[in-house]
Amino acid sequence: MPHQEFPPISDVVTQATIDAYAELSGDYNPLHVDEVAAAASEFGGTIAHGPIAFQALFRSLTAGLGTTALPPGTTVRVTYRAPVRPGDTVTATVAGRPEEPGDGLAAACVDQRGTTVLSGHVTLPDRG
Amino acid sequence: MPHQEFPPISDVVTQATIDAYAELSGDYNPLHVDEVAAAASEFGGTIAHGPIAFQALFRSLTAGLGTTALPPGTTVRVTYRAPVRPGDTVTATVAGRPEEPGDGLAAACVDQRGTTVLSGHVTLPDRG
Repeated sequence: MPHQEFPPISDVVTQATIDAYAELSGDYNPLHVDEVAAAASEFGGTIAHGPIAFQALFRSLTAGLGTTALPPGTTVRVTYRAPVRPGDTVTATVAGRPEEPGDGLAAACVDQRGTTVLSGHVTLPDRG
Repeated sequence: MPHQEFPPISDVVTQATIDAYAELSGDYNPLHVDEVAAAASEFGGTIAHGPIAFQALFRSLTAGLGTTALPPGTTVRVTYRAPVRPGDTVTATVAGRPEEPGDGLAAACVDQRGTTVLSGHVTLPDRG
C-alpha cells in the first residue's frame, strides 16, 4: 500500500503570478499577459505559462525529500493536460515513499474543479 | 538526418533571477537566497531553484512549435544533472522536427562550461 509522505502543495495562480513569470522568463506572449487579446483567442482569456503549474509539484517534491535541490539524476516527467487560468488553485500531489532509490512516484496537479492540468511521474536516482 | 528547427534559447541566471523566482514560488530556502548561509553549505554558494533551468527549454519548445501553450498531451521528461549558479548561462537545445505527431525530441540545457545541467526528452501529442 503506497504511503503518502509528500505534502500536497497548493498555489493560487493570479494574473499577477503570470505577469511576474513573464518578467522572469522574458515570455510576454499576449496569450499570457494581454487580457484583451487573450479574450479574443480560442482560450477566451489569459492562461498561465506552462511551467507555472510545475512549481507546486517541485515544492512538494523537495518538501517530501527534505532537500532544496532535487538530487542529481532525479527525473521528472510531466504531461500538460489542460491550461491554467488566473484564479485557479493548482494542487500538486506526489504519491509514494520518498528516498527509495529508483522509486517511481506518481504525481499530478489538479485545479479547484478537479481537472488534472498536469500529470507526472518522478524517478529518484539510485544511490546504491 | 535530424533537422534542428527549434531555436536554441539562452538564459543568464543571476541572483536577481533566483530572488524573483523565490518571490514568485514562495520558496525562500536559504540555499537559494541567503548567500552567507549558502556559502557555508556543500554547494559553496547559492544555487538556482530547479525549475529555473527548465525555462529556456520551455521557450525553445514553444518558439519551435509556434505556439504559446504546449499542446495538451505534450510530455516533457527532464533529469536534473547539475546545479545552476548565479552567473551561469543556460542554453536549451531541442533536436528534431517540430509537429511530427508522436515524435520524440531530445532536449538538453547546458551551461557556459559545457556541463549538462538538465537533460530531457519531449513527446508531442498524436494529433491523428
